[in-house]
Amino acid sequence: MIRTAAILSTGDELTTGRTLDTNANFIADKLVAAGFDVVAIMVVGDYPERIVWAWREALRYADVVISTGGLGPTADDLTTETVAQLTGRSLVMDHAVAERIRQMFAAMNRTMPENNLKQSQFPEGAAVIPNALGTAPGFRLDLDTEHGTRHLIVLPGVPREMKPMIEEQVIPWLEQHRGSNQVYLGHVFQTFGISESALDELVAGAVAPEEGRIAFRAAFPQISVRLTVHGAPEVVPQRLEQLAARLRERIGTYAYGEGDTTMEAVVGQMLGARGMKLGVAESCTGGLIGHRLTNVPGSSRYFKGGIIAYADKIKQQKLGVNAATLRAHGAVSEETAREMAGGVRGQLKCDLGLAVTGIAGPDGGSAEKPVGTVCFALAVPETVYSRRYQLWGNREWVKLLASQVALDWVRRYLLGSDPTESGILRR
Amino acid sequence: MIRTAAILSTGDELTTGRTLDTNANFIADKLVAAGFDVVAIMVVGDYPERIVWAWREALRYADVVISTGGLGPTADDLTTETVAQLTGRSLVMDHAVAERIRQMFAAMNRTMPENNLKQSQFPEGAAVIPNALGTAPGFRLDLDTEHGTRHLIVLPGVPREMKPMIEEQVIPWLEQHRGSNQVYLGHVFQTFGISESALDELVAGAVAPEEGRIAFRAAFPQISVRLTVHGAPEVVPQRLEQLAARLRERIGTYAYGEGDTTMEAVVGQMLGARGMKLGVAESCTGGLIGHRLTNVPGSSRYFKGGIIAYADKIKQQKLGVNAATLRAHGAVSEETAREMAGGVRGQLKCDLGLAVTGIAGPDGGSAEKPVGTVCFALAVPETVYSRRYQLWGNREWVKLLASQVALDWVRRYLLGSDPTESGILRR
Repeated sequence: MIRTAAILSTGDELTTGRTLDTNANFIADKLVAAGFDVVAIMVVGDYPERIVWAWREALRYADVVISTGGLGPTADDLTTETVAQLTGRSLVMDHAVAERIRQMFAAMNRTMPENNLKQSQFPEGAAVIPNALGTAPGFRLDLDTEHGTRHLIVLPGVPREMKPMIEEQVIPWLEQHRGSNQVYLGHVFQTFGISESALDELVAGAVAPEEGRIAFRAAFPQISVRLTVHGAPEVVPQRLEQLAARLRERIGTYAYGEGDTTMEAVVGQMLGARGMKLGVAESCTGGLIGHRLTNVPGSSRYFKGGIIAYADKIKQQKLGVNAATLRAHGAVSEETAREMAGGVRGQLKCDLGLAVTGIAGPDGGSAEKPVGTVCFALAVPETVYSRRYQLWGNREWVKLLASQVALDWVRRYLLGSDPTESGILRR
Repeated sequence: MIRTAAILSTGDELTTGRTLDTNANFIADKLVAAGFDVVAIMVVGDYPERIVWAWREALRYADVVISTGGLGPTADDLTTETVAQLTGRSLVMDHAVAERIRQMFAAMNRTMPENNLKQSQFPEGAAVIPNALGTAPGFRLDLDTEHGTRHLIVLPGVPREMKPMIEEQVIPWLEQHRGSNQVYLGHVFQTFGISESALDELVAGAVAPEEGRIAFRAAFPQISVRLTVHGAPEVVPQRLEQLAARLRERIGTYAYGEGDTTMEAVVGQMLGARGMKLGVAESCTGGLIGHRLTNVPGSSRYFKGGIIAYADKIKQQKLGVNAATLRAHGAVSEETAREMAGGVRGQLKCDLGLAVTGIAGPDGGSAEKPVGTVCFALAVPETVYSRRYQLWGNREWVKLLASQVALDWVRRYLLGSDPTESGILRR
């Protein structure tokens, strides 16, 4: 019966401040959403005695300990050996895993270096947790200790590999072994265009503390609102639905999606459902909007492509922006954005042409057009929308925020509303 | 004499995954740069027994323990009381601090709530660490314990308040009480195209354990190699240089940069230095290469733009790919990639035209061209390079890896070598 959890993160890069420990945060969020109590997060460098200490302490207080990192093939990867030593188990080679690693190298036409075999060794009695995206699988070890039954879960530290392992394997297993028959259900709204504090005001009082719990999570540029309800299995699903309906009404069109989705996926579904094609003309975003749209499988159904018109000459030659417009209003202007949008719509023969031109910084700003000035335009069959925004933050931030506003314009247009009303970011 | 440090972060928002613990990362970085060894980072929620446990354990192994969080005025802020209890000290009010808090409220035309007085209480014997930006000062307590002399440093959790306190007060104090005059210096190589285990083999034996420490960190798609050297200030800089030179020779062209840099920044510097212009023709990467190139400030000097040719029609109409080529070899072929590269080079009037076309998945693969098949081409003044690769992983991964290979082609070409030799990813 599992109730409490501890998280261990291993790696010199974490204790020297070189890398931010986002793994522990991700795992803690998933554990809490599934109803577990995270008693501690511990981070140690690649030293056997420190790893042993962290495991010992974690196992005193937590029913399950989830560790990430230290599963690589090199000499400074010590987690498996340390766990074996700590639990008094010998290391055993799993030949199926070894064969899979060999095949992964063969698929790249390479011979597996001998030290990768290390990744196919596990403490005796461990259950292997497959890793679809890398050579190092994880494992689980169940242990009877002086403190009670304990479960050690060991995962690789690469976030891309670890995250699906947590979501698809670890959490479902933990839920089956939870120490009560209470269920925890959650519902998430993805929002954009409203600040965390404004969102907090918007939903204030919608859910009483005894009904459910609301948590905000800002993952720039969106903020997710998570509703968690727990209780007896026969009442929780209905209560979740009721509370979600209340929140849905409060949040309105600030919510672009519910559940595990993204702005680009939502926009893609809407375009696909309407059988419409989109083309993009990107200046300051440099390709980011196209990149995001094509992150969605099947995006070729509605995304034809785009012109990255970084140089003004490309804006003229490939999008048909008039030299006079550039001279009179500059490359960063609503007028130029409108011609870019119309240009890409016509050139690529799309239903919608989306254009962004702005100053991402750190240089290129002026008193009249400071860094963060970004102009958007959306050319649709009946008209061309445009607006100038003042965004903020560093270069990366301005680009990301601009791509999000641009996609939100398409979403709002397809919802039948005025795209230029997108969010609080409006002038 | 202080040599080792531990960092404690307190707060439910950290153990529930609501907030990322950036404080510990910031403090660890400053401590390591000042030559201290961070033995552990511990994170616990607002429970007295968990906070006591964390302090006890930290004080066993570290000469100095730096804690953030739990200094607010509300009932769930427990750090000061817990430290007093742990050390057997009584709490004493500091009247000067109380008066300062009262004045801060008066300056806002507000009466100080009584519970803010809590922030003027400190364990007996503590040295107050002023907080210029908030009501809660920190404090330092020096202690003789069974493990030796220990220093407890307690700071508020608000990053904006904590950071200047660390930089201006804590680190200077620690440097004066450092247990040796040893310095710690590091040097980082950024590599691509070689696996962590192969890299490990490549550098094996180059640095003896007593000379320095080598650590690898995989941040897909690159792997960084960090060399750390410590010792007397008069010998360390030179030793670091000698060891770095040895590693540089071993790693060779797999290292695309040194220090805090990226592939796109390195490629940009090389293009800029040669006065060359680049244009991109992107199919499966959908704009990601342009996005990465334009993440670098000043990229307009060498990046003119590109064509996102997601639909085959765009490949024909905007890049001049022949219908016959598409029919005979398919959109994902070296032949199509070559015509795309040549097309974008000519259309955008660039020195270099870079093209990528592939199958990012999860659909679209076949026996002959499975998911992960990506063809690259680079059109340069004297010729066109091309090659087909078999990449791996999910959609996002294939796109990212493809963008990295593409940029590495430009780098290798500008280095005067054959771009198709890029890394281990070669067929």
